[in-house]
Amino acid sequence: MVRQVRAVRTRRIILEAAGAVFDEFGYESATIAEILARAGVTKGALYFHFGSKEELARGVLSEALTVEGVLPQPLRLQEWVDVGLVLAYRVPREPLLSASIRLSADRRARELFGTSWPGWIDFVAGQLAGARDGGELLPCVDPQITATLFVSAWTGVEIVSSGLGEGGVLERRVAMLYEAFLPGIAVPGVLRQLDTAPDRGARVWRAHCEQQSEEGSGAVPVAFYRV
Amino acid sequence: MVRQVRAVRTRRIILEAAGAVFDEFGYESATIAEILARAGVTKGALYFHFGSKEELARGVLSEALTVEGVLPQPLRLQEWVDVGLVLAYRVPREPLLSASIRLSADRRARELFGTSWPGWIDFVAGQLAGARDGGELLPCVDPQITATLFVSAWTGVEIVSSGLGEGGVLERRVAMLYEAFLPGIAVPGVLRQLDTAPDRGARVWRAHCEQQSEEGSGAVPVAFYRV
Repeated sequence: MVRQVRAVRTRRIILEAAGAVFDEFGYESATIAEILARAGVTKGALYFHFGSKEELARGVLSEALTVEGVLPQPLRLQEWVDVGLVLAYRVPREPLLSASIRLSADRRARELFGTSWPGWIDFVAGQLAGARDGGELLPCVDPQITATLFVSAWTGVEIVSSGLGEGGVLERRVAMLYEAFLPGIAVPGVLRQLDTAPDRGARVWRAHCEQQSEEGSGAVPVAFYRV
Repeated sequence: MVRQVRAVRTRRIILEAAGAVFDEFGYESATIAEILARAGVTKGALYFHFGSKEELARGVLSEALTVEGVLPQPLRLQEWVDVGLVLAYRVPREPLLSASIRLSADRRARELFGTSWPGWIDFVAGQLAGARDGGELLPCVDPQITATLFVSAWTGVEIVSSGLGEGGVLERRVAMLYEAFLPGIAVPGVLRQLDTAPDRGARVWRAHCEQQSEEGSGAVPVAFYRV
């Protein structure tokens, strides 16, 4: 059991190092040697978990499909807002998450193992379909189309703000993105109840972390695929 | 004079080849040898125009700041819509344009010579400021903020749709992006007059091409920096 816990931790350390290296050098120029140096693990340990650079990249991409910290809310649209704002808070702080965006935007990398975009689009479309069933959406809204557009726009906001070296603006920009989208999506009565403040992501995430440290890992997050 | 025309044409051929190679391989993995092979020019001709791979990339980026084909309209917001829709029509058809987006999203490349985003954001902010002065914008709109958000979202829509291999959807997606943004930006009387149909870009571009072939190069485009 102790050995298993240690293996999970080692796997995580390797993935985080791989994320940082992919993020910094791009997929093509990233080397296993550099990842080993950052992770501070042996070659044997790395190859026990991941057989190749491709597998490392797949590992990074799969970790990025996370809605950790987002808890169920009375309004489904609030959950949708929370997912985007919690990520906006976490991505600049977690190389594993920003690496996955970089990998998806890297043509060479995505030819090899795809992107996390289809997963995100389906997830957001599911959230919006839930909001529609709850009467929160204007009748004209198509969840799949809006999800595709929003995930694309969110990605562009992240790429451009990190590209312009504007640290710390992502949460503000993503909050504005929601404000641009919401009036065309939400019924007015729901619209005015939504919290889209730029610090919403930080508050939700902190509450989640406090809850976790109090209860062990007792908090039940929003399931990624709620069927 | 003939020699000058030929030099301009050779420069263009080299830039288009470089654009295609950057687009396909990414900046880091692109080689001068591959660009030479595509362009079908001599090494001497290439180095006459561009001293290095960096200079080629800078050349590609500067070509991408184009609003060719967009003509003045009674409503400044229509010009804004036209810029984004004409580009959505042209980018999938012109490797030089899509290469510039790829170069901007490539961390290594943009560390070396920046991106075309600040230029685009300033240009769009200028268009929106013009629209505001003409009474076309809702009073709460900040042209600089909206421009940053829109250029980011446009970029994300291009990156995600080309990343998902969804050829031919860019014009539809960008039209939807305008429809998502416009109700929060335009005064109602202007909103209903705007043409945001997905084929608007193709129509504007074709009219421009016909006009050019009729008149030589007589059409006066929207100036990139209208002071």
